Amino acid sequence: MTTFPKRIALLGSTGSIGRQTLDVVRRFPEHFRIVAMAARSNVDLLAQQVQEFQPELVTCFADTPEVEAKARRLLPQALIGEQGLLAVATHSDADIVVAATSGLVGLMPTLAAIGAGKTIALANKETLVMAGHLVTQAAQRVGVPIYPIDSEHSAIWQCLRGEETSSIHRLLLTASGGPFRATPLEELKTVTVKQALAHPTWSMGPKITIDSATLMNKALEVIESHWLFGVPYEKMEVVVHPESIIHSMVEFIDGSVKMQASLPSMHLPIMNALAYPDRLDSAETDFIRELRWADVASLHFEDLDLERFPCFRLAVEAGKRGGTYPCVLVGADEEAVELFLTRKISYIEIAQLIDAALERHQSIEQPDVAATLDACAWARRTVRELWKKRA
Amino acid sequence: MTTFPKRIALLGSTGSIGRQTLDVVRRFPEHFRIVAMAARSNVDLLAQQVQEFQPELVTCFADTPEVEAKARRLLPQALIGEQGLLAVATHSDADIVVAATSGLVGLMPTLAAIGAGKTIALANKETLVMAGHLVTQAAQRVGVPIYPIDSEHSAIWQCLRGEETSSIHRLLLTASGGPFRATPLEELKTVTVKQALAHPTWSMGPKITIDSATLMNKALEVIESHWLFGVPYEKMEVVVHPESIIHSMVEFIDGSVKMQASLPSMHLPIMNALAYPDRLDSAETDFIRELRWADVASLHFEDLDLERFPCFRLAVEAGKRGGTYPCVLVGADEEAVELFLTRKISYIEIAQLIDAALERHQSIEQPDVAATLDACAWARRTVRELWKKRA
Repeated sequence: MTTFPKRIALLGSTGSIGRQTLDVVRRFPEHFRIVAMAARSNVDLLAQQVQEFQPELVTCFADTPEVEAKARRLLPQALIGEQGLLAVATHSDADIVVAATSGLVGLMPTLAAIGAGKTIALANKETLVMAGHLVTQAAQRVGVPIYPIDSEHSAIWQCLRGEETSSIHRLLLTASGGPFRATPLEELKTVTVKQALAHPTWSMGPKITIDSATLMNKALEVIESHWLFGVPYEKMEVVVHPESIIHSMVEFIDGSVKMQASLPSMHLPIMNALAYPDRLDSAETDFIRELRWADVASLHFEDLDLERFPCFRLAVEAGKRGGTYPCVLVGADEEAVELFLTRKISYIEIAQLIDAALERHQSIEQPDVAATLDACAWARRTVRELWKKRA
Repeated sequence: MTTFPKRIALLGSTGSIGRQTLDVVRRFPEHFRIVAMAARSNVDLLAQQVQEFQPELVTCFADTPEVEAKARRLLPQALIGEQGLLAVATHSDADIVVAATSGLVGLMPTLAAIGAGKTIALANKETLVMAGHLVTQAAQRVGVPIYPIDSEHSAIWQCLRGEETSSIHRLLLTASGGPFRATPLEELKTVTVKQALAHPTWSMGPKITIDSATLMNKALEVIESHWLFGVPYEKMEVVVHPESIIHSMVEFIDGSVKMQASLPSMHLPIMNALAYPDRLDSAETDFIRELRWADVASLHFEDLDLERFPCFRLAVEAGKRGGTYPCVLVGADEEAVELFLTRKISYIEIAQLIDAALERHQSIEQPDVAATLDACAWARRTVRELWKKRA
């Protein structure tokens, strides 16, 4: 039996996953307790959360002097900066660290948490995409499990309960196909930011919504799956499933397929990661709705059209090549998406710039953390320079 | 790790499940060996099977003197009759007994196999429907597992791997809805035997095909699920899913749903039951085809229309009431379906006769084997008498 309450250190408490993690903790006070929390710049919300959850330790990463000043005023007890993040990630009272920061800032605290023997509930994509080799090696060495917080990986993880990795024939990640699944290819040249931000099934931040339109996001999930489940790229496929009800599937060597379904919800993967191996009763919550099959009525499936989604192909290729290519992928994509969101490039130029950056890159094998971050920064600079030359 | 080869005693080797079990054994000679086998009346095929699989013990149940004579000629080494069935079921070299006889004849050998400490792979419906209380109590007492051979139960069983029974919110059994899923209710009065035998997705014997048209078969599966998984009737539902690709689902208390899928195949549940907890590589077989999601293209779901399927409602009600009601259900259904198949009654009279038999029955609690068989025989006689009065 699991011992409750589990004591949680939460990195990224004011972001979307962080806030939903706190929803879960709020609803299950006998199961979970927040012992430490950290956020970047939303000091007002962080102060409210501290008030409500009374953690022993609080950190504001404070990426600007203004944020730092505000944090010192509203949260005089808070640690400031990266040392604070590391202190939250390794807090001696924490059983489990929820890594829900966005971007590169999550990598060092996650490695530190693993070093401190904490169970990791991982929502941060970049950590595994850029440094999957470092993170999984460290976790294996220490004997620490990494539980996914993401609907696709949570689906696969649930389907693999009670199964052997050697029984896996393929992992089938489902993809909604985003807003441009059926747009004529010719029209992709002129789609607007507004069109790209109109995701059909999930409501998310702008960066990940564009990554969902290009299917970059799905390719990053493929790379994460490679590290999370130890499955080679040849054994992974993406199936387009517009309704986003089936969150992913595992096909076993005997031909049997297991799939996990729910109405779109991030609370459910969070609950799964926090409560594992237990399952909590969602009847006690107001954030998980029952899936009524007669209301769902029909589910659809299509092959992925690689011509339509060049970012997907580039990204999986970068994953397969390994070294610092995935770091370049992450950096180049961040910069290119920012250029698109600020109307500086067109939609199809996102893939072109990423491709150009990957082309120019000299990868190194088995990069350490510094080399990882360097490659990512190099890619951002390179994309910006390439854009300036074009403009 | 599992020790292979597993040694199998096969009851019902010449029936559909028996022949497919032998397909699996033939393809995986290093995993399985047939040590004993029994069939009812197809002596020619049984003799061929004995020639191929060289079991140590063979039995012909021989329900007529002609069959017995033929068996004595073609298989002089065979045991004849019920004692032979019991000898096969309890053969000292067998690790696992595949109970694939049809009808009531499987009950005693299954109880004997449990008594002898054999793992049970159960394909026979009547055993759990009529005597679920006896079978599950005996299995628990001896500590013997019962593995299902049936696509719906195998699906649920696979979804429950690595999960706790206490985490189950509902079992959702899928039903194709049979040939009359969309037939106007008025027309059901005049549907023919030929129409009822035209099942849209599965090719099976006539009795079970009619039971699939009336959804009696699905209700029997609900009753079996109650005993196999220890789940109360309130926690089971049927979802109509015409494509028969998703074989059943489990909804957990947290709102997550796990489902198992494959192209329709009985080889797969057989392989699952025989190899458990391992999975065998179906690439080595020619009988399991890969599920291509782009070919599947769409899956549909509907609520079950109880007005259209009165047999379903009657049967689940009999399951809930318990005692000897499920035995009456089985006997009354066998007789009514036989009357329909021989064109003596109309399609809608099947439910009417079953209802009338259940109405007239005086149930007893916790029936023993004899009381179980008596109630079933009483129901057959009662249905025949009711029909004669009507005719």
